[in-house]
Amino acid sequence: MARPPAVELRRRNRAAMLEQLHRHGPQTRAELTEALGLNRSTIATIASDLAESGHLQETTGRSTGSAGRPSTLVECVPKALAVAAIEIRADRVRFALIGLGGEVLERAEAALEAGAAAPEVAAAAAGLVGPSGAEAVAAVPGLVDAGTVAHSTELGWTDRDVAADLAAATGREWRVVDTATAAAVGEWSRGDAHEATKLLYLHGGRGLTAGLVVEGRAQRGGSIQLGHIVVEPNGRECACGLRGCLEAEMEAFGYAEDIEDATVAAGMGDAAARDALRRSGEDLGRALGAVVTATGPDEILFGGWLRELYLSAAAPVRSALAGTTLPHLRSRLRLRTPVLGDEGALTGAAETGFAALIDQMR
Amino acid sequence: MARPPAVELRRRNRAAMLEQLHRHGPQTRAELTEALGLNRSTIATIASDLAESGHLQETTGRSTGSAGRPSTLVECVPKALAVAAIEIRADRVRFALIGLGGEVLERAEAALEAGAAAPEVAAAAAGLVGPSGAEAVAAVPGLVDAGTVAHSTELGWTDRDVAADLAAATGREWRVVDTATAAAVGEWSRGDAHEATKLLYLHGGRGLTAGLVVEGRAQRGGSIQLGHIVVEPNGRECACGLRGCLEAEMEAFGYAEDIEDATVAAGMGDAAARDALRRSGEDLGRALGAVVTATGPDEILFGGWLRELYLSAAAPVRSALAGTTLPHLRSRLRLRTPVLGDEGALTGAAETGFAALIDQMR
Repeated sequence: MARPPAVELRRRNRAAMLEQLHRHGPQTRAELTEALGLNRSTIATIASDLAESGHLQETTGRSTGSAGRPSTLVECVPKALAVAAIEIRADRVRFALIGLGGEVLERAEAALEAGAAAPEVAAAAAGLVGPSGAEAVAAVPGLVDAGTVAHSTELGWTDRDVAADLAAATGREWRVVDTATAAAVGEWSRGDAHEATKLLYLHGGRGLTAGLVVEGRAQRGGSIQLGHIVVEPNGRECACGLRGCLEAEMEAFGYAEDIEDATVAAGMGDAAARDALRRSGEDLGRALGAVVTATGPDEILFGGWLRELYLSAAAPVRSALAGTTLPHLRSRLRLRTPVLGDEGALTGAAETGFAALIDQMR
Repeated sequence: MARPPAVELRRRNRAAMLEQLHRHGPQTRAELTEALGLNRSTIATIASDLAESGHLQETTGRSTGSAGRPSTLVECVPKALAVAAIEIRADRVRFALIGLGGEVLERAEAALEAGAAAPEVAAAAAGLVGPSGAEAVAAVPGLVDAGTVAHSTELGWTDRDVAADLAAATGREWRVVDTATAAAVGEWSRGDAHEATKLLYLHGGRGLTAGLVVEGRAQRGGSIQLGHIVVEPNGRECACGLRGCLEAEMEAFGYAEDIEDATVAAGMGDAAARDALRRSGEDLGRALGAVVTATGPDEILFGGWLRELYLSAAAPVRSALAGTTLPHLRSRLRLRTPVLGDEGALTGAAETGFAALIDQMR
């Protein structure tokens, strides 16, 4: 078959330059030349194409040394391309309009009644989100596949087509990702996890979920109900109907909202709190052993209230994980906490939208 | 950004037609028009492009009815594009050169010494595989990631860069997939599992492995060491150093090579054989519960000797799986046996190569 024609290469180069600047911020033409492995004249052509289409601008920026003259920087025009991102939680909907390069252009949030149904939540979202943004992406806590929330402990939803609810309320199309996957994409793109090839993000909210991303991209089947890994055959009854689920067995789960109090008490020598944290760490480590064996990540981030649990119980988590994971899967595995905190899911939802937009340009 | 230019659309349409004929066999232009959603004149243009490049031919084929005249069929030219596939087993290497449309053009195999090291296996492969085939793909039993076999119970290899070994021995580049993943791709492409969105294939050989494919495609992280899911906390010691692994706990594993004898004995009323199969089925079902929760497949195929185990112990497998999997994950899950038998892995290795070739055409 024919090789890609010049016009197609030019499209791909434009997408690559835009992705480079979107992810890494303003750069000189010389830096772009090196990062993209293209020659100087190609860089010049592509940059002026993208300046003409309004995506880039060139500015006189930082000095490259005490004696050097200020160098010209190529940078994204934030408003040229934006993504509307929302994060749905049990008690509120958060919205951000994020521009090319990652700048937050708008931000808003709305409180939700406890137990709000999906159409009400979609209506609240519609009140926040205008027509702006070339893509719209929602992060929802739970097990999500192809726009549908199959199960959400946190929201109490089952088999809900949230993409359709949001489309009906807002008159535009939505992508839906689970909160843990969105946070994983966020940490990979704008946090400190960009070296992870397969990143598993654990989200402790009112349920325990996880998201697996490969090279920063959400995967089908990467949305995981961590809380319903069975860690104790014939164990305690879980609200889901099974026995021995991590959510049912893990003592810390009962006081997730007081996790900071528990860690403070344990730190002050409270033996009961210390034991509960240790056993919770062991349960979590064993559940992770199964997830790691089934999915093979090279980095795990402990997010939501699992961050506090991990910080107080890293030793039992690691020891239980070591007892349930093959050495070669364990040897390359880093355990860490996320750096974007509360912003991870919204950031990652937006980055999922940008990835789709940049893919469409190729 | 600009929309895809006409030349690019034409490339995509060519790739789509080739994929359609490769997967579904000879078709009339009318059938192609419907399957690809293109108009008749576009179909005619693309078909003559592909005939000119030697990929397609038009033949007078089957009659479309008792009174109808024989219709002209568009079909692949098998030798126009071929993939060299090998499957490495503990005792032999099998080779097939598979042409466009799925026809086997050549076939050969070589015996291996027990415990052969990777370079010897690669040398044996080199003796079978000539320069033919636009892609070369190897199926290897074990945990495979990016050309490297991280762990193979069956071959006794750890962290072996098999892609490099094969490249050194044959002077060409290789893709490497694990046997279970290859078999999954094979069953999805040429077997009876093409309706599965997320297909989990279980392979019972000298080790227990699994492969997860999404819409027929191998995934990074989709190669799973099923045998080392811990099903019994503080259980029996496994050869890998952990305790309670499925491979250590599962009684049937001890007589995998006599599984047919055991099922016959159980069928004839041997209580010990029957109990061993039941307990093995329960262990397998519990391990699957964790894998299903972590990966969310909609179909599971029981391959290798797990086929016989599943056929004799479907009830305990299903019951243990039901006790360890959320209802909404279970409700859409089909459990079946593969149809390609011994040919699945070689077929799937070839299809992995064709998928890459057709992607390159887009």
